Amino acid sequence: MSDQLRFGVIGAGRIGRLHIEHLMRRIPNTTVSVVSDVVRKAADSAAAEFGVPRVVGDAKELIRSPEVDAVVICSSTDTHAEFMIESARAGKHVFCEKPIALDLDAIDSALEEVDRAGVKLQIGFNRRFDSNYRRVWEHIGAGDVGDLHMVHIVSRDPAPPPIDYVKVSGGIFLDMAIHDFDMSRYLVGDEPETVYAVGGVRIDPQIGEAGDVDTAVCTLTFRNGVYVTIDNSRQAVFGYDQRVEAFGSGGMVRIDNNAENNAVLSTATAVQSDLPLNFFMERYIDSYIAELQAFVAAIENDEPTPVNGVDGRIPIIMGYAATKSLAEGRPVRMDEIAKM
Amino acid sequence: MSDQLRFGVIGAGRIGRLHIEHLMRRIPNTTVSVVSDVVRKAADSAAAEFGVPRVVGDAKELIRSPEVDAVVICSSTDTHAEFMIESARAGKHVFCEKPIALDLDAIDSALEEVDRAGVKLQIGFNRRFDSNYRRVWEHIGAGDVGDLHMVHIVSRDPAPPPIDYVKVSGGIFLDMAIHDFDMSRYLVGDEPETVYAVGGVRIDPQIGEAGDVDTAVCTLTFRNGVYVTIDNSRQAVFGYDQRVEAFGSGGMVRIDNNAENNAVLSTATAVQSDLPLNFFMERYIDSYIAELQAFVAAIENDEPTPVNGVDGRIPIIMGYAATKSLAEGRPVRMDEIAKM
Amino acid sequence: MSDQLRFGVIGAGRIGRLHIEHLMRRIPNTTVSVVSDVVRKAADSAAAEFGVPRVVGDAKELIRSPEVDAVVICSSTDTHAEFMIESARAGKHVFCEKPIALDLDAIDSALEEVDRAGVKLQIGFNRRFDSNYRRVWEHIGAGDVGDLHMVHIVSRDPAPPPIDYVKVSGGIFLDMAIHDFDMSRYLVGDEPETVYAVGGVRIDPQIGEAGDVDTAVCTLTFRNGVYVTIDNSRQAVFGYDQRVEAFGSGGMVRIDNNAENNAVLSTATAVQSDLPLNFFMERYIDSYIAELQAFVAAIENDEPTPVNGVDGRIPIIMGYAATKSLAEGRPVRMDEIAKM
Amino acid sequence: MSDQLRFGVIGAGRIGRLHIEHLMRRIPNTTVSVVSDVVRKAADSAAAEFGVPRVVGDAKELIRSPEVDAVVICSSTDTHAEFMIESARAGKHVFCEKPIALDLDAIDSALEEVDRAGVKLQIGFNRRFDSNYRRVWEHIGAGDVGDLHMVHIVSRDPAPPPIDYVKVSGGIFLDMAIHDFDMSRYLVGDEPETVYAVGGVRIDPQIGEAGDVDTAVCTLTFRNGVYVTIDNSRQAVFGYDQRVEAFGSGGMVRIDNNAENNAVLSTATAVQSDLPLNFFMERYIDSYIAELQAFVAAIENDEPTPVNGVDGRIPIIMGYAATKSLAEGRPVRMDEIAKM
Repeated sequence: MSDQLRFGVIGAGRIGRLHIEHLMRRIPNTTVSVVSDVVRKAADSAAAEFGVPRVVGDAKELIRSPEVDAVVICSSTDTHAEFMIESARAGKHVFCEKPIALDLDAIDSALEEVDRAGVKLQIGFNRRFDSNYRRVWEHIGAGDVGDLHMVHIVSRDPAPPPIDYVKVSGGIFLDMAIHDFDMSRYLVGDEPETVYAVGGVRIDPQIGEAGDVDTAVCTLTFRNGVYVTIDNSRQAVFGYDQRVEAFGSGGMVRIDNNAENNAVLSTATAVQSDLPLNFFMERYIDSYIAELQAFVAAIENDEPTPVNGVDGRIPIIMGYAATKSLAEGRPVRMDEIAKM
Repeated sequence: MSDQLRFGVIGAGRIGRLHIEHLMRRIPNTTVSVVSDVVRKAADSAAAEFGVPRVVGDAKELIRSPEVDAVVICSSTDTHAEFMIESARAGKHVFCEKPIALDLDAIDSALEEVDRAGVKLQIGFNRRFDSNYRRVWEHIGAGDVGDLHMVHIVSRDPAPPPIDYVKVSGGIFLDMAIHDFDMSRYLVGDEPETVYAVGGVRIDPQIGEAGDVDTAVCTLTFRNGVYVTIDNSRQAVFGYDQRVEAFGSGGMVRIDNNAENNAVLSTATAVQSDLPLNFFMERYIDSYIAELQAFVAAIENDEPTPVNGVDGRIPIIMGYAATKSLAEGRPVRMDEIAKM
Repeated sequence: MSDQLRFGVIGAGRIGRLHIEHLMRRIPNTTVSVVSDVVRKAADSAAAEFGVPRVVGDAKELIRSPEVDAVVICSSTDTHAEFMIESARAGKHVFCEKPIALDLDAIDSALEEVDRAGVKLQIGFNRRFDSNYRRVWEHIGAGDVGDLHMVHIVSRDPAPPPIDYVKVSGGIFLDMAIHDFDMSRYLVGDEPETVYAVGGVRIDPQIGEAGDVDTAVCTLTFRNGVYVTIDNSRQAVFGYDQRVEAFGSGGMVRIDNNAENNAVLSTATAVQSDLPLNFFMERYIDSYIAELQAFVAAIENDEPTPVNGVDGRIPIIMGYAATKSLAEGRPVRMDEIAKM
Repeated sequence: MSDQLRFGVIGAGRIGRLHIEHLMRRIPNTTVSVVSDVVRKAADSAAAEFGVPRVVGDAKELIRSPEVDAVVICSSTDTHAEFMIESARAGKHVFCEKPIALDLDAIDSALEEVDRAGVKLQIGFNRRFDSNYRRVWEHIGAGDVGDLHMVHIVSRDPAPPPIDYVKVSGGIFLDMAIHDFDMSRYLVGDEPETVYAVGGVRIDPQIGEAGDVDTAVCTLTFRNGVYVTIDNSRQAVFGYDQRVEAFGSGGMVRIDNNAENNAVLSTATAVQSDLPLNFFMERYIDSYIAELQAFVAAIENDEPTPVNGVDGRIPIIMGYAATKSLAEGRPVRMDEIAKM
């Protein structure tokens, strides 16, 4: 038992609890030794349910705990960078939910500390670990589609978040499309050069009043000549719409949505099947386990993590470029936002 | 914690370990308090991995343990009936892997003891709890296909079992088709009247030398006029081939195999996707959790279990009828084998 | 123009008109020089629509016409054998709609005359020329499924024929399943040994009163060890249900129904697509052209036709075997019906 | 016969012959009375094959012929406008292949003449008549996807045209994407406002040397707030890649490529099916018949044609906007090109 990797989990909300469950029950040789939350009751409840032996109110106490080898940061976005810096300084490996921060300087400072400390850092872009997306990436990497020419990403949520969340979310590009920006880099295997975004309010006028859009399409150009389009919507009434298509000189690979069953009913009126999975935790549950397994493996083997600090930083720049593009009605170069 | 349902698991082989893992980690309010195996090391290993506090060598000691509320029987088939009787006499609920026994008298005796004791009994026909099969059953039950006319079941293993297992398996109908016989009753919602089986050795001559066939087709008639065909093979080279189609006056419902991903690759030569899942544990993993959850719910709510003793008995009769039909080249009535 | 193959078409009903249209408009180097029908108006109408220069009332006059090189027989079943004999004696090639006759002696006599005359004979089992079924046959022939073990055929009509037709049809096995019996021989590439049929009246009691069944399942064994099951129904409310699955040591090939479009609509309640094609002429239109093209090619190249007299005879024997099996509740050997 | 609609077909190339065949053989109550081609032999050959009674060398003679009610213009693009004007002045209805012209003034002049003459004009955007695209349009029109938010069009040819053709084609946007621009207007049901195009040479450097690109992505905004993306490639090695997806407040509708058969082969290595249809005539054959039927119906019923002069004009403007956008690296407003 002494060779278990011991985690401290900061934040016992929905995602925090999920990580705790996986570390306690689904991933071999890991345990959660401490959990913290600003809402003490949330931490207590998670600890009780999954058998975490210690609960603290202060995240920094958790970070400093000698029984913590690695920290999982699931607290609110505005605390990520600070806790990352604290963890790095304490010599603890860090798994941090996206985004690192909405402020680019804060990101840069945090990443510098992590570099200096030499600890492992992984960002929670879980979709890279989903078996569908992973298979697309494998096919591209294996040359099965030849030279990549275009990627089309569809990413639509089943329903908009609460309007209070929208107001502080940073906007659709930094909050929602950020996963797709990451996916584009993951699949294209290079860096974006320009971002052109169009968008509007088609679903809920309140989202517009909050200064955001709920429907958007981004067109990206990459250094290696690949074009990427991203279709985003805050509401696909049929479920969580998460697909990608990659086309190249040798062919094409596509994935479709996942459903709970594949039963097809043919009646006198139609041929029909059930809707895709609706809830992101259900749709992506296995990817949450796989990303932590990869993090654990990187620590155990002292290898680079599969989603590093740069992978956390660039999608933020893309988000700002998209936001600027939408505002100005023109394609925006990545280097207008920040040095790449 | 005192309201947890405490299980004793007899047999720490592949299925036993799976049930232990699920009871310890995946199903709320359950625990495994004792595990036994005739191979002590197997029980020790399972106990260590999943944190089972007590290991015994003798299953009967497990059954009598006061810290055991319910028994899961995963030992070899020839011990099922005896342990079921012991458990019933000890007032313990029983979850028993299929088959109860290959001897019909033994089954009848065991079921009588269970009835007399009034304990819950559930048989491990897990496929009823798979989301695909369950959805077919729901559609039929909801009248979505109208009056049911025909069912076609495809059930093919990815590879034959070891020849030593084949020799003691009771034959393809009692060992493998038994799941499909159960499925036919589950979907048709009535009892079979006749069984007609054809079959032969097409995959491995050793299976023929062991007195069995590896390829078989059964045609069943049911009391309510439904016809069922079952395609069985010991080897589908493309993976675990598990499908069903139900047709009726109002339509049809079908399910297809499950794969790890749904990526479709189009190249200059073909449009292709990955093979279906190959391993039964991978394919049916969720159904193993769901069947135990249903068993727990039946105990907690003092309701009938969803797969009872009769459900365990009749597929055995069907297996004998199919075996006789194959030997004699004619349809065999169920009542030629045993009273229904 | 003088090298055109000149056809006489007997019978200007639905199928006759279709063949006339194809020979006049869709198949190169063929023409229809004479059409006949016992209902003179039908022949006149077809001639006018498609530009057939000559109409006669008497089929035998058509057969004897010097401007007729080949005869297409689409008249009522009871006249097929007689017109086939007349055509053979007149040295005309014959394309005959199925069945040749319901009387086996009549079939044998007709085939003898054809053999004696040395004319080409092709039977109208059009499904062999459908691109789906043809592809299954190609895959089997290419060894893509290895040694063939099982075939499952689904063949369900969208709606029962008029009850007056049912009464004279010869029963479901000789009228409807005959296409599937042909398909089984085509795909298996060998001859059947036994036929076991179950069936009943589930759709329309009038069909039962007419002495027939409307729902049936046949299980066939073939000389080469292949097992075939056939699901027949007079009514699939969702459309023309025409599918096949072939399984072997190396894999499996399946086909699905055809629809007019492949649009998939996802809404808040379901993922749905349009029904399969409903009408046999729509579903199989291309196969009707292809079978005549093959007949023309066989004549032009003096090669065997792809569906010969034996192919027309054996499905009739299978139909009688199935009828007898249903009546007697046992598998019937083909040689109980006729010499193979 | 006197109530047949009599066509003159200008141009007996691939498309011209196809229209002649359809008018002579597949569409009721139509005939082709005259065919012309600058290559007299081509016209002679088509006339002989399909039985067109008269051949002329001069298109204007054809237009003036009293036995011509309507003209089909399939000659080279640079002649379309002139023949359209001549036909209008002669009081003949016009079916004109796309594009009307590459010169906007020429288009405007031709459309004015057509308006003045009051003859029917239909442009050959055949894809609107394909059953897949038509079904998407129907679903949108029926409100099945609610308010339309986004459309994604995939349009990839199986192989680039000859380089000599590329040089005079007007570029990928005017030659190839024009079909997709038409499709976007057809599905969105409104006019575009801005076009943003990215593109490059990924397939054949000769295309670049000819001043064109072979790979391009367009992002369009429409007046009604719909966003459209178009993926174009001159080469999809797996076949003719022609798909569309329309997403809205109430759901989504998608279509897939068409294949010659739907056989699915599962082997030990993959689950695979045949490639999509490769040749545009094979893929879209039915749409060519349907568009002419619609033209005939419009004439017979004196109703507007379904694809009018404006429908022919605006995609040209879109093509110029895309060309300008690609050159200048910015979104271009439609009214920068021409008055809408």
